[in-house]
Amino acid sequence: MPTGSTQLSILALSHIPMINRGDDLGNIILDGLIADGFQLEAGDVIILAQKIVSKAEGRVVDLTTVTPSPKAVELAHTVDKDPRLVELILRESSEVVRTRKGVLIVAHKLGFILANAGIDHSNVDQGGKDKEDMNQEENILLLPEDPDTSCQKIRDTLTTATGIDIPVMIIDSIGRAWRNGTVGISIGISGLPGVIDLRGEPDLAGTPLQTSELGYADEVAAAASLMMGQGNEGCPVIVMRGLPYGRRNGHASELIRPREMDLFR
Amino acid sequence: MPTGSTQLSILALSHIPMINRGDDLGNIILDGLIADGFQLEAGDVIILAQKIVSKAEGRVVDLTTVTPSPKAVELAHTVDKDPRLVELILRESSEVVRTRKGVLIVAHKLGFILANAGIDHSNVDQGGKDKEDMNQEENILLLPEDPDTSCQKIRDTLTTATGIDIPVMIIDSIGRAWRNGTVGISIGISGLPGVIDLRGEPDLAGTPLQTSELGYADEVAAAASLMMGQGNEGCPVIVMRGLPYGRRNGHASELIRPREMDLFR
Repeated sequence: MPTGSTQLSILALSHIPMINRGDDLGNIILDGLIADGFQLEAGDVIILAQKIVSKAEGRVVDLTTVTPSPKAVELAHTVDKDPRLVELILRESSEVVRTRKGVLIVAHKLGFILANAGIDHSNVDQGGKDKEDMNQEENILLLPEDPDTSCQKIRDTLTTATGIDIPVMIIDSIGRAWRNGTVGISIGISGLPGVIDLRGEPDLAGTPLQTSELGYADEVAAAASLMMGQGNEGCPVIVMRGLPYGRRNGHASELIRPREMDLFR
Repeated sequence: MPTGSTQLSILALSHIPMINRGDDLGNIILDGLIADGFQLEAGDVIILAQKIVSKAEGRVVDLTTVTPSPKAVELAHTVDKDPRLVELILRESSEVVRTRKGVLIVAHKLGFILANAGIDHSNVDQGGKDKEDMNQEENILLLPEDPDTSCQKIRDTLTTATGIDIPVMIIDSIGRAWRNGTVGISIGISGLPGVIDLRGEPDLAGTPLQTSELGYADEVAAAASLMMGQGNEGCPVIVMRGLPYGRRNGHASELIRPREMDLFR
């Protein structure tokens, strides 16, 4: 491709190992970059899948250790899910938004509206060193407790090692109200804007723009998600080079519509 | 960047002229590629902004020619919008989903749930050759009538000219129920899947994936939107090289959740 300021390159690192509790993601990324022969430059951004951040931060819960409350048992019956899983979903949430058989949509304590409070079963390695133990565990992963701070820590490690300020984002995949299929969204940010306000900027014909706010970090997240793959393919760390728009110390909460502006809760 | 199968490159063409009714977008793209010194290869995909497709297809309406119905006048009062604009929104829609001062969310006849039936004022050139006429027009743009077919036609032109089958997508920017900022979504597809079904594929730990369907075309759209810019920047044609997943003759309608599965209408 011809290169220039209007080109974005998105690369999935190919040497990221399985992540375990306590792993230092910043240094694992630095090793992965070296293994791929990739040198970070000013303007590069690192994007991580939520799962590896949750694993590194020990956000694994063994379902066999969870005792569901009566409320969870009742709701589990309505939505036809494991009562222990529903118990964890309720603990992670501030509000139940919609229920239907097979569907439990909540407001996560972090503000995101999503199914099952972002908890999932998939790609959770069984953790224990004892194979026999492993078979008796049913591990699930919660979202990181404070994803913006998780990003900040990784950004600090990368900056210290390289001398370049490298913004970091954590993404997850969510469903949408009216569209099929999941898409990547940003759940943690350090060093990038969440939304970009375009209000008042004239368009090509000089008319002030109607559509005023760009969901910048979510578009970055969707682009990264495309290259992470799902299932077997698992490439949980992405490097982007050539992202447009300036930098700013944004927050994932910028992307969350305030309760009072919500027409659909 | 090191190149390989895990890299996606997204390039905004820099020589696309202002588009007018009747323009042949396929040939304009071919000229733009030449002007940028870019040669299409197998695997490349072209993504267009909805606005230029609507313009080329003459989907411009002069608001001064529109007489609002009593229903439109009443609704315009509720949502505090121009009654002529509301009249056009209603003509383009099958159902009004939510109203509030400044907000009119509908189901477009094509199935998409979006604000103002996807109609906007911005970046509509005034069309007429007579400058004096232009000042009396208030032009708006409707969505293309059949975006999948629009894509197919452009794809045919590109394939005929290059001998390579080049998938084509049309995207628009929409708001979301619970998140701030607009993101690109796919409203027309030819030669790519809309959604990708991952059900049953084992993940890294061998557990069948819970999150079963990937909103593939919408992730591609968001990535493209990032490089199109908004407002002044206007780069309405994007080339992607290195998109993952196989090809299929998908439809934008795959991404629309069926009415009976909709928990939020």
